[in-house]
Amino acid sequence: MNNYFNRHLYQINAYTPGEQPSGKKIIKLNTNENPYPPSPKIQKALDKFSIDSLRKYPNPTSWDLREEIAKFHGLNVDEVLITNGSDEALSILFQSCLEPSDRVILPYPTYSLYPILTELLMNESRVVKIPLKQDLHLDFDTLKKQKGKLLSFASPNAPTGVLENRVQLLDLVQNFKGIVLVDEAYIDFAVENSTLIQEIRNFDNLVVTRTFSKSYSLAGLRVGYLVSNKDNISLMYKLKDSYNVGKISQLIALEAFKDRKYFNSVIKMIIKSRVMLTKELEKLGFIVIYSQANFLFAKPTKEKAEAVFQYLREKNIFIRYFTDNISQNYIRITVGTDEENRILIQVLEKMH
Amino acid sequence: MNNYFNRHLYQINAYTPGEQPSGKKIIKLNTNENPYPPSPKIQKALDKFSIDSLRKYPNPTSWDLREEIAKFHGLNVDEVLITNGSDEALSILFQSCLEPSDRVILPYPTYSLYPILTELLMNESRVVKIPLKQDLHLDFDTLKKQKGKLLSFASPNAPTGVLENRVQLLDLVQNFKGIVLVDEAYIDFAVENSTLIQEIRNFDNLVVTRTFSKSYSLAGLRVGYLVSNKDNISLMYKLKDSYNVGKISQLIALEAFKDRKYFNSVIKMIIKSRVMLTKELEKLGFIVIYSQANFLFAKPTKEKAEAVFQYLREKNIFIRYFTDNISQNYIRITVGTDEENRILIQVLEKMH
Repeated sequence: MNNYFNRHLYQINAYTPGEQPSGKKIIKLNTNENPYPPSPKIQKALDKFSIDSLRKYPNPTSWDLREEIAKFHGLNVDEVLITNGSDEALSILFQSCLEPSDRVILPYPTYSLYPILTELLMNESRVVKIPLKQDLHLDFDTLKKQKGKLLSFASPNAPTGVLENRVQLLDLVQNFKGIVLVDEAYIDFAVENSTLIQEIRNFDNLVVTRTFSKSYSLAGLRVGYLVSNKDNISLMYKLKDSYNVGKISQLIALEAFKDRKYFNSVIKMIIKSRVMLTKELEKLGFIVIYSQANFLFAKPTKEKAEAVFQYLREKNIFIRYFTDNISQNYIRITVGTDEENRILIQVLEKMH
Repeated sequence: MNNYFNRHLYQINAYTPGEQPSGKKIIKLNTNENPYPPSPKIQKALDKFSIDSLRKYPNPTSWDLREEIAKFHGLNVDEVLITNGSDEALSILFQSCLEPSDRVILPYPTYSLYPILTELLMNESRVVKIPLKQDLHLDFDTLKKQKGKLLSFASPNAPTGVLENRVQLLDLVQNFKGIVLVDEAYIDFAVENSTLIQEIRNFDNLVVTRTFSKSYSLAGLRVGYLVSNKDNISLMYKLKDSYNVGKISQLIALEAFKDRKYFNSVIKMIIKSRVMLTKELEKLGFIVIYSQANFLFAKPTKEKAEAVFQYLREKNIFIRYFTDNISQNYIRITVGTDEENRILIQVLEKMH
């Protein structure tokens, strides 16, 4: 072992993304990908795209996309930062606000990348984990009392799929003395008007992130965005790579974003399937947490969660299992097509 | 001003990329883009690409591309890290080895992103700038004596285009006690066997970066890579975003990389044009630094450099002008097509 690199890097583990098995027989319900293809308008736009134009650098701020997104949310362009997936948005935010000895407040469990981003930055930063309540909702009373530089969670939360009450969320943002990151990766699958995006005008400590990976069926593209007040954006802008999103990515994301009709129809199908799948799992004795995302967090009552996960895996159905104290009793299942969900239920029926 | 973000972020300036003017009449010789389009094989591969596959996450390590690049350089896959442009490679490297109070040694001038990456990380890190010698070569004697965590420069250097002697470079790597980053963004335009890539097997403090933006005509795509010994790569891997390069980017970069015949023909044309343009500028009284890159660093003897820059700009020819002590007497001109270079010379002739 040499000592060229930061000491704490040697100890920590990298984030482990869900498996990406390939093969025609596999049903992949483990990484919350969208079961439907992205907008068909993308192909038409790509057919017109000149490969020759790739010799020049892309627009550094993804201008056309940024403008379209800002307009849609009723915001100004300088309140939006386009990123290489929402992963880059999270990296930039954590890097821009954390210094050694700062405290990061996280509900527990939430998206497992947040503690890793903290540890990667500096081992001296301390992560304070506040467990979810028995009903898997955020423990607002305890969270509000915490002192920290950053509070971070997903809304709806992951891996639970639980969406919190808007009034309670805003009360938390108002009472927390540091930055509050609300990761809205799954918000498009929630009831309308659940987003806090417009609230960045009212709270200068609020940062909201979004991704094209889930609701726009573009996990393979890598585009996301971050919304906050313009002073915050101009600070975080300094930390992004000069040309962080390529030309083709900007083009495809823009086409997908503009095709609201297709987008809405996909969301509608997934929500309908989510409701159906919830009922079917309940019939099989699962306790299913009420989800506002494109996945279900479900507790088997007849077998251990890990046994269900392993059984499905042997049958070529990939779901997700997390080993933390709370999640270990649950499995997380991405909502697939109705056909995929039907096969899942049939295979589960045979387990008994 | 609030105090949510790191204090030093408020003071520093972001990196300023060269202008990206658009318009048919403009001759753009300011950002070292390749004047030729990328490999025609890209279009064929893209025509076969299924947009539907974008709904799933990409391979997290860009496996096929990584394998092809490793094979080409005679390295193992675990000695290569594929990044979102070489900008991400640089960010990851700086982030992985710098801690507060560390010193960064930079020749002066070199690529202007390096000092900014240092300042972005922490204001306590100190940049020590070692001026180039009178002949614009690295001052090896002084560099060797420096103590620092990181020494970073481009090879060939930017904005000078100067390539250093291999023996001197390796002697510097051997004698420097921290990481040496050799940024080979322009190495494909240099004489054969100038790369230090294979030397990562001999020096565990050597990191080499490459980009697809220049020699592969893919600035608009955002793909680069970083090469170092496998222990270093596995540490830096922890800092990259899980899915840092999208599916289409992986595919296009792979096609461009595999098409060695087209690649070699483009390089040959640019080198030929570079030699011609050097002669023409010398005829006009410029002192032209011997370049091994796709740009020329030239000192006008009749007018001030800034005046030449401004004059060309008014004539819709964009070149680059830097204001530091050494560069202020030079202009940097990207080698264009022969037609673009001819117009440049004609316009310069009229200045006298």
